[in-house]
Parts: sequence; structure tokens; C-alpha cells
Amino acid sequence: MPSPAAPTVSTLHDAYRRGTPVAAVMADVYARIAAVGDPGIFIHLRPEGDVVAEAARLPAFDPARYPLWGIPVAVKDNIDVAGLPTTAACPAFSFVPARSATAVEKLIAAGAIVIGKTNLDQFATGLVGVRSPYPVPRNAFDPARVPGGSSSGSAVAVAQGIVALSLGTDTAGSGRVPAGLNDLVGLKPSVGAISTRGVLPACRTLDCVSVFAHDVADAFLAYAVMRGLDAEDAFSRPIVADTTETAALPTRVGLPRAADRLFFGDSAMAGAYDAALGVLRPLASATSEIDLTPFFAVAKLLYDGPWVAERHAAMRAFLATNADDVHPVTRQIVGAAERFSATDAFEGLYRLAELRRTCEAVWESVDVIAVPTAPIFPTLADLAADPIGPNSRLGTYTNFVNLLDLAALAVPGPFRGDGLPAGITLIGRRGADASLAKLGAAFMAAAGDRRRQPATAAA
Amino acid sequence: MPSPAAPTVSTLHDAYRRGTPVAAVMADVYARIAAVGDPGIFIHLRPEGDVVAEAARLPAFDPARYPLWGIPVAVKDNIDVAGLPTTAACPAFSFVPARSATAVEKLIAAGAIVIGKTNLDQFATGLVGVRSPYPVPRNAFDPARVPGGSSSGSAVAVAQGIVALSLGTDTAGSGRVPAGLNDLVGLKPSVGAISTRGVLPACRTLDCVSVFAHDVADAFLAYAVMRGLDAEDAFSRPIVADTTETAALPTRVGLPRAADRLFFGDSAMAGAYDAALGVLRPLASATSEIDLTPFFAVAKLLYDGPWVAERHAAMRAFLATNADDVHPVTRQIVGAAERFSATDAFEGLYRLAELRRTCEAVWESVDVIAVPTAPIFPTLADLAADPIGPNSRLGTYTNFVNLLDLAALAVPGPFRGDGLPAGITLIGRRGADASLAKLGAAFMAAAGDRRRQPATAAA
Repeated sequence: MPSPAAPTVSTLHDAYRRGTPVAAVMADVYARIAAVGDPGIFIHLRPEGDVVAEAARLPAFDPARYPLWGIPVAVKDNIDVAGLPTTAACPAFSFVPARSATAVEKLIAAGAIVIGKTNLDQFATGLVGVRSPYPVPRNAFDPARVPGGSSSGSAVAVAQGIVALSLGTDTAGSGRVPAGLNDLVGLKPSVGAISTRGVLPACRTLDCVSVFAHDVADAFLAYAVMRGLDAEDAFSRPIVADTTETAALPTRVGLPRAADRLFFGDSAMAGAYDAALGVLRPLASATSEIDLTPFFAVAKLLYDGPWVAERHAAMRAFLATNADDVHPVTRQIVGAAERFSATDAFEGLYRLAELRRTCEAVWESVDVIAVPTAPIFPTLADLAADPIGPNSRLGTYTNFVNLLDLAALAVPGPFRGDGLPAGITLIGRRGADASLAKLGAAFMAAAGDRRRQPATAAA
Repeated sequence: MPSPAAPTVSTLHDAYRRGTPVAAVMADVYARIAAVGDPGIFIHLRPEGDVVAEAARLPAFDPARYPLWGIPVAVKDNIDVAGLPTTAACPAFSFVPARSATAVEKLIAAGAIVIGKTNLDQFATGLVGVRSPYPVPRNAFDPARVPGGSSSGSAVAVAQGIVALSLGTDTAGSGRVPAGLNDLVGLKPSVGAISTRGVLPACRTLDCVSVFAHDVADAFLAYAVMRGLDAEDAFSRPIVADTTETAALPTRVGLPRAADRLFFGDSAMAGAYDAALGVLRPLASATSEIDLTPFFAVAKLLYDGPWVAERHAAMRAFLATNADDVHPVTRQIVGAAERFSATDAFEGLYRLAELRRTCEAVWESVDVIAVPTAPIFPTLADLAADPIGPNSRLGTYTNFVNLLDLAALAVPGPFRGDGLPAGITLIGRRGADASLAKLGAAFMAAAGDRRRQPATAAA
């Protein structure tokens, strides 16, 4: 079980204000790593001495100027940190970048201290967190369950209270599903809002750097530090630099109609979702039921359509020489790209454009769509029996988001009847990041202590 | 040679104001068709009686309400007109649409009278106008030269004074090159500004409906009538609804640096371009030389890269059953799509995104780029000897424009030393349509009578 006193930016900054030495905070990080004892979280953990030495070189504590001063962070191992190997959970692929990704550079410039590089579904292909040659990170609430992926290590590192913040990436849900399965906030910003320079592509037109945190304020703070147009990233796009203070609270809430409530028999997840809606409804000016048919049709394009060729493009050269070094499930998935022609790819783009037009209509009547973050909570045994099916089902409410150029925020909600965490994801239009954060924070405040009590309420 | 008194919207509306019956104007259209005697212009010409009857049903003359009242127009035969066959210059492909394209519906609603459907490079693939099983439309100035394409018939119909306005399409230059080779204005709007619903795709992500006219005011008027978001077209995009009165005159003019002045040995075209710049420079606040290297790299993606698969997508089903009905040159070009995979397509999109980022920098220092519309003026014999090479060279200054999401306006300039027409194309950012029109009109006014005199000036 995760620490009840996981560090956050505000608790750490309070500690620094009280005079706690940064070295002591860093020592706590490593003590916590030892106490957790999960060898699957980090692929590369920096030596404690290096981290303490770096922290000692920070300028004087000045959180206004350095909003992440002295905050330990973990970075998913498909995002470059200068001097540390980037493996993408494929040892043969490993290289040591001379320069950090833009997102990491910005975190460090804001005072953050990178502790290490975290495990993932290899090449960020997966939503389960078990497709790695390294030990599988343990779900923070139940080691028999999947941690969720692909950003498994980054999620568990925050959930276990090792770091206050971590970076994931999110193409199909990799920054949201592990948040939902580990009781975390998972901020998946508008596509292109955070530079992906220095991030190994999964689907380069869709990839987002994401943030895991314990509260919305921390996640949004890290997002605000990292966002901004980057001339070095061709897919970077300008984004409104608003805050949760200046953004409007989205109050017209869309919910999946009955036919689109898909839990694949997981009644505990359905119960937790209903409990979350019980918290959310009083915050809404209106709720309406949404037909998700076109959204689900978009989702199908991602793996059953030509977008799998983007994953192939990202690892084409490596696959040509090192196919045997690639995880067999990943190889199977990415190999499917070979049956798609360029004509198929453009036809997929046409189909997406048409579906986008259809889906856009929803925003005339709602400001935000609230879906379950994950519809199921598979066990490791489920995945061993079927490496593909549960993974696909996990993406039910996440796969379509980036293809539709939307922003999303996963927030923890009331727990399931069986005591496991669950969450909802708030989805809004491109640029709605701050509005989603405002609603997400209100939701968490409203849920309050009820969050961990539905074991008695549902059952 | 074209009529010295070709009709324009203003001359026709003046005539209507003076009491000229619309039937008389329609009769003039058919008389002019007979006088021109070019069987290659129209693939389907409506019976004069039908046109006169339709004109008789127009509401009372009210040009404020119906800005194209009684204006005869021709429509390229890859754009649907209800009840007339759409052939795309491929008889076996022909079908009779029940509904007109959105662009045509808007013209008709504004009072325009469609006279017929015009010849084109089959499936709008070509810049020469000779890739058609129908007789080749004759260049309005020299029947031994290519008319330019792919919108060959629409350009010649306006150049010959048959109609005041015509619609083309422009993916790679098809609305600009024939304008340049027939002394016309060719307005290629911002991508997505005019709906392509009811337009047979060439490259669906890039296709634009374009306008041919004798002056900029007429072309812009037709554009303003047709522009606007269309929910039925997934590639339609919102566009600013400004006018030449409200738009800023673009005065910082970029010109190709010496190394990018490509005329492939055609000194007459080079001379005409220099003469045009002599007219343009006094209108500019500053001129600067532009390195077109990244623009030319973009152009290469269109035919040498995976975008040819868009053309394949547009005719895939037809090719599967009717390959022998496709023009052999078209078949050869589109057939090249088969060597590109979906991975190649996405890699092309990445390359384009990177080149777009590079090209964008130019707009920091210039408002408009002025290039030759066509760098050469091939003869029919040139094309018979080499069906591909001259066609490719014709697209030197047009191919990159839609891939870079730019707007362009081809305007006639001073004639070549050999008495043939030549023109320049003004290129601006997306949404600059009205600004380009403002500069284009100023350019034509400044050129004035000098336009047809360089036969003596150059030589």
C-alpha cells in the first residue's frame, strides 16, 4: 500500500521553508525506494550521491522563481535525460543522450531534481505495464494487479510516495490508465502543448508528455512549467497560457449514455464510477448523455487502423536489425503495420477527419465529458492468459482522445468496493487544460474523505 | 487570340443595368463558343435553350443581393453540377450527380448561370492540360503551346471570353499554371476555405476549388461567395471573411534568391518575370531574397513522396476495375503509390511538419512571396516527346503551396518577349486571401497598358 504521507510540492516546500535541508529530502527519497522494495519501478536510478550533489548546487530556495525547487521527479524511460541511458524498456535499443528533452530541461530549470528513469511498456506500446523485459512495477495497491501502462514505473513511483511528480507519455492513454489504477492524478495535456523534442516517438503525431501527481495543483504546476511552443519540435503548437484561476469552470458535463457504459463485467469499476458521478453531479450545472459511437470508431483507428504504422515508423530501423530484441507482444502489434499501404494511411486520415467533424458537435452542448479512466482492473494472471485483450479494453475511454485533439485529466475518485482505486477522466477541447484542472481539483475536494470509504458503501 | 472585350462581372452588370436582356448575354456566350471553335474546352456544354430558360427564371436583377446575377460560369469537370455528368475527363468514370457541389450551389444561389463542364487533365493529375482523352483545349494565345492544367478548359473558357468566371481545382498548381499560361487571374484560396463537398478528390487533404477571371475583383467576388465552413466537408475549415477593403496591403515582398530563379532555359519567361518585378517593386516597402530550398523540398513530397497515394486513394476502386480506361500517363503516375507503405506515409507527414516549421520562418520578414507562376511555356510537341518532365517543371513554384497551407493568387503580368502571356503568383499565409487580392489588383493596375508591350521592350 502506498504511503499515507506521500510528498507533494506543497508539503516539500513547507518543509524547505521550515529549514529542512534538501539533502534530507533526497535521503527520504532513497529511503522510501528501499522501503518500497520494488525492483521494477526504475530502469535507471541515479546514485544518491549524485542527486544530493546536484540538489546542493540549487540556488537559494525561491519557489516564486523556481516553482519546482528541490522537488524529486522521476522520468519515464522514453524521455531523454542528459547523461542517463534512454532504453524505452529495450536494453538493446539503449543510448545515452547528451541533451535532455525540452520538457525535462524545463523541469530542471524550475528547480526539479531528476531521480531516475522509470520502467514502461516497451516503446510505450501498451496500457498494462507488463510488456517489459525488466521486472514489472507492482501496482501500488495490489501486486497481483497490473500497474497500468505504458507509464507504469512513473505512476508507481508517485503512488508509492518516492517522488512528488513524474513524467509519463500518453499516446493512447499511457498517462491516464496508470493514474486510474494507482489513485493518482494523470494530466494529459492538449496535443503539442508540451514539446516532445527528446521524447522517443510512439505515434509522433499524437504523443504527449504527461504528468503524474497526487493532486491537481502539482500536476498543473508541472504542466505550466513545461508547456509552450518549441521551435525544435515540428509537432509543438501554441497553447493558451492560462491558469486555474483565470480559466472557466466547465459545468455542462457529458456522460456516456447507458449503451456506452462499458465495464466488461467489472461491477466494482462500474460501482466506483457511479460513486464518482455522485460526487461530480453537484458540481455540474447540467449533465447530458453522450453517444460515444463516433469516439469509439476513432479509437479503433489507433491499433486496428494505419496509425500502428506510426509505431512502426518510430522503430523501423531498430526492428530491421534487432527484431529479436523486441518484446514479442510489441513485435506482434507493431508488425501489423506492414499490411497497411500509404493509400490506407491517407484513407485513415480521411476517416479521422470525418469522425472528428461528427465528434465536434458534442461540444455545443457540453464543456467536459466525464468517463471512467479504466473500465477494468486486470490481474497479472489475466494478462499472462491474454496479452492483448485486457490491454485493448483498458483503452476504451482513452484511445480516442489524442486522435481527436482533446485534453484530458485523470483524477482519483471514490475507491471500488474491493478497496482498489478507481478514477474518472475529464475530457475537454484542445486548450481546456486549465478548465479541466479547475474542475478536477473541485471534484477531488468534493470527494474528500469519501474517496476511500466506498468499500462499505458499495460492496 | 482571346477576345479583347471578354465579359467581366462589371461589364455584364453594366449591360444588365442598361437593360440588356439576360437571354442576349447567354446568346453571346454561345456565339462566342462557336466563334472560338475549340472542341476541347467543354466536355459537356448545356443546350443553349436550357441555359436561357434557367436565366429567365432568375429573380429581378439585384446585384447587391445576387452578386453574380446573370454571370455565365464554367465548371471544371471534376466538380459536380446537378444533372450534368461528372467525368473527370475519364468517360468510363462518368456519373450524373443529383446534387451540385457546395461551391456550385453557392455560385448559383448568387445568381450565376452554369454553361457547362470543362476539360481537364484526367482526374486533375497534371499541370499541362493534355492528359485527356478529349481534344486538348487550345491555349488561348498559341495553339502550339499547352493550355496548362489540370484546369485547362476552365482557363481557356475565360481567356477566350466565353464566360466571365470559371471554377478550377488546385492541388499542385492546377488553378494557377493555366492562369499564367492564358493571361488570367487564378485565385487559389487558403486550403479548406471553400468546401470541396461534391469535388472529386485529387489529394483530399490539399484540394482547393479555384477561380479563373480576368480581373482580381471578379475572382475575389466569386471566392467570397463560395467561402465558408461546410459541416458536410471534413476538410472545410473556418476562414476570416475579410474583404480587399478591410485587409492590409502586404508590402514586405520576398523574392526567390538568384539560385532559386529556375526557368530551365526559358529566357522569355525570365524576362517577363523581371518585367513583372519592375511593376511590383514600387508597390513594396521592402523586398528581400528568399531561400526556397525548404519549399522545393516540400514540393518533392507531392509526387516523389507518399502524397501520390492520395491520388491513388481517390481512384483506387475505379482503378481496380477499369485500369485500361485510365490515361496511360495518369496510370503511371498514380500507380507509383503502390510502392509506399503506411509507414512511409507517416514519415512523409513528419518530414512535412519539419519542413513547415522551417518554411514558416520566412513570414517573420516578408508578407508575401512573389514567384513566377510558370517557369516555362511548353509546346504540345514538348509534351508529346516527354509527358512527365515539362509537367514536373511547370509545378516548380506551385507544388509546395498547399502542402504548406498557404494561399496564392496568380496574376497576369507583362507579356514575354515573344508575345505570349506570363504571370506572377503572390503567395501568403493561410487567411491572407484578401491581402493577396489587394496587392494583386494594385499590381495589375500598375502594370496597366505596359502588360502587353514588352514584345518591344524585351525581345
